[in-house]
Amino acid sequence: MSDLIRLGENACRAKYKAQALTTDKKNKVLVKCAASLKERAEEILKANEKDLETAAANGMKEAMIDRLRLTAERIDGISEGIVQVSELPDPIGEVLDEWERPNGIRIKKVRVPMGVIGIIYESRPNVTADAFSLTFKAGSACILKGGSDAIESNKAIVRVLRDVLTSEGLDADILQLIEDTDRAVTTEFMKMKQYVDVLIPRGGAGLIRAVVENSLIPVIETGTGNCHVYVDKDADLDMAVEIVFNAKTQRISVCNACESLVVHSAVLESFLPKLKEKLSSKNVELRCDAASLGVLGDGATAATEEDFGKEYLDYILSVKTVDSVEEAVDHINRYSTHHSETIVTENKKAAEYFLEGVDAACVYVNVSTRFTDGFEFGFGAEIGISTQKLHARGPMGLREITSYKYEITGSGQVRG
Amino acid sequence: MSDLIRLGENACRAKYKAQALTTDKKNKVLVKCAASLKERAEEILKANEKDLETAAANGMKEAMIDRLRLTAERIDGISEGIVQVSELPDPIGEVLDEWERPNGIRIKKVRVPMGVIGIIYESRPNVTADAFSLTFKAGSACILKGGSDAIESNKAIVRVLRDVLTSEGLDADILQLIEDTDRAVTTEFMKMKQYVDVLIPRGGAGLIRAVVENSLIPVIETGTGNCHVYVDKDADLDMAVEIVFNAKTQRISVCNACESLVVHSAVLESFLPKLKEKLSSKNVELRCDAASLGVLGDGATAATEEDFGKEYLDYILSVKTVDSVEEAVDHINRYSTHHSETIVTENKKAAEYFLEGVDAACVYVNVSTRFTDGFEFGFGAEIGISTQKLHARGPMGLREITSYKYEITGSGQVRG
Repeated sequence: MSDLIRLGENACRAKYKAQALTTDKKNKVLVKCAASLKERAEEILKANEKDLETAAANGMKEAMIDRLRLTAERIDGISEGIVQVSELPDPIGEVLDEWERPNGIRIKKVRVPMGVIGIIYESRPNVTADAFSLTFKAGSACILKGGSDAIESNKAIVRVLRDVLTSEGLDADILQLIEDTDRAVTTEFMKMKQYVDVLIPRGGAGLIRAVVENSLIPVIETGTGNCHVYVDKDADLDMAVEIVFNAKTQRISVCNACESLVVHSAVLESFLPKLKEKLSSKNVELRCDAASLGVLGDGATAATEEDFGKEYLDYILSVKTVDSVEEAVDHINRYSTHHSETIVTENKKAAEYFLEGVDAACVYVNVSTRFTDGFEFGFGAEIGISTQKLHARGPMGLREITSYKYEITGSGQVRG
Repeated sequence: MSDLIRLGENACRAKYKAQALTTDKKNKVLVKCAASLKERAEEILKANEKDLETAAANGMKEAMIDRLRLTAERIDGISEGIVQVSELPDPIGEVLDEWERPNGIRIKKVRVPMGVIGIIYESRPNVTADAFSLTFKAGSACILKGGSDAIESNKAIVRVLRDVLTSEGLDADILQLIEDTDRAVTTEFMKMKQYVDVLIPRGGAGLIRAVVENSLIPVIETGTGNCHVYVDKDADLDMAVEIVFNAKTQRISVCNACESLVVHSAVLESFLPKLKEKLSSKNVELRCDAASLGVLGDGATAATEEDFGKEYLDYILSVKTVDSVEEAVDHINRYSTHHSETIVTENKKAAEYFLEGVDAACVYVNVSTRFTDGFEFGFGAEIGISTQKLHARGPMGLREITSYKYEITGSGQVRG
């Protein structure tokens, strides 16, 4: 039996243990996990030191090394995150629907755990504890595959968490880490359909593409965001400046940052110079279509067709001019990655048209795109932001990593 | 541009037309489709005749030819099915949840169409009209790939339906059929992730496996059913006989038929001979473990390990003896395809343990497994029965082929 298959069988045994746990027990275990990570911080930091040394020897860039680095404060933060998950309501057992049929059978639709959740992620070792706490609270077993850069840190964190599971009389295989960092093993893992119910990739576009292309397990794609702000002819232009500025510059490296501005031609001249001034404080480069370039002149560069489909994750913004809200919606639906899109307008009809017409996980009126986030939505947690339409769309909290089943009771009904 | 890519682009244009239709308009179009299929029955039957001739020339078996055959009555049935779909409530626009955040942004979770739904199916031409009516009512465009055996029938049915769409001023590409029956084209279709939001295979295990293994599009697996009936020590044995008889023999070729019997050892002697007598009216073969073979003797054959994992779709039933409801649940979770499982018992505790512990889409107490069905559940329609845990589980009606989005409104909120 290969190591991976053993992991799969372990998870399938452990998932039945995980699903049977009471809310109190799960919360107690999580609180103990949080405490244990702090108590054994030194052990984790030592392991992390090894990863950092390897990274430095391999010439990893400082920004990447920083993502990899753990400190006592960061471990406190991880620990605090687990305590927060312990305080969230338990999604399991919620009755989603209930009805009786004319033949007397009673059908109850109940939220149940997913079973075994696989998560493949990149450098940051905090994801290890994070992913465990969410899947555990949601009643599932998990199999984690972290980045090879963080392997020693991940092994240490998993050791601490599994020790807590064991000390609480639970099956430690509720949490398993794939320790083999060979890429072929990861690909083999993605084929383990008979053991894993869902696979969630967390990371850059390359990782997500590799998972979608290779996985036989159903995937929840957490994706890229080419998010737009559309400034309507009836926009409050001061509000529009603040929203574009926030959505573009508050944090440039995230999927809910604004990458493209769509402007109604009627406000092009009154709005663009104002925005340009505000954005210049952050040296944002504007890549403009012909009409907007005409207004900004030397202060901007000409956009190519490619710019409108691009997730820059940088201080760059493409600008497209339209003559109507209909044209804005068409443009956005064509180039968007269906993540988060905003209209700024005081016009109720335009707002309604935009809300209905735009095909995205989160469609906003007069709000920055940056609010697409599990915490900002009030979910109290986030395992990722889905850009697919199947199962979960937008920010995913605990409920989004559960399934349901039908419980049907009767008195001997047979089908005629 | 390849034909398939053209189909994809057409669908992506048409889906925005489909999602904007009012309930009244959709219903009117469906009723007209139903009428038009009857009016143009002769044209459809002529096309079907060609398929039947090809099938006969290829030496197709009579049972298969019968699945392929259309008659005026069968077309009436298809037409009636479409009228029924027109009468179902429209799932689109339903507000699933709504709340306000402390910062004043208001979040509304709204049911929206999936977008483009792909369906790959086998011989029966009635699926063509069926799949269209459900996806259309659910606000989506569809791309259908039927079996090559039925290609002429499918083309005729699609021609009639598209003519109605055109005559009603709609984009006919809301419904498209892949006419190229080359297997490579089907495989290429499964890669069209950028155009198709979900792919639903309907057919035998081979088709479903091929889709799961080749598709880059998210799949809803409609699967095989190795369904169990567990007869508890506290069962009403007469009821148990009726339930097993119904679940096993009422229709043997379907996924919700019972394939395996699990019996508590305490009732083995009182129950099995009684059941055997009833099942002998249908010549059901019993494949027994050692304990049950001991009771039935010559009336049964010995089961192998393989029997317990088998979906016979035949007058065969495997029999496993257990000493407790816990053991029954373990056995079922091990061998089941997580479709439909029943306990027969008068014991409330055993029933609860079974309901909670069994990992299946539909878990029953004192009801035949044959009720796992969209119509029996009251959905008024069924596009398949999902055996995966992602997105939809169990019978899928209109709601199960929709997605949702978040509509968020505010007054200029930006993230701090």
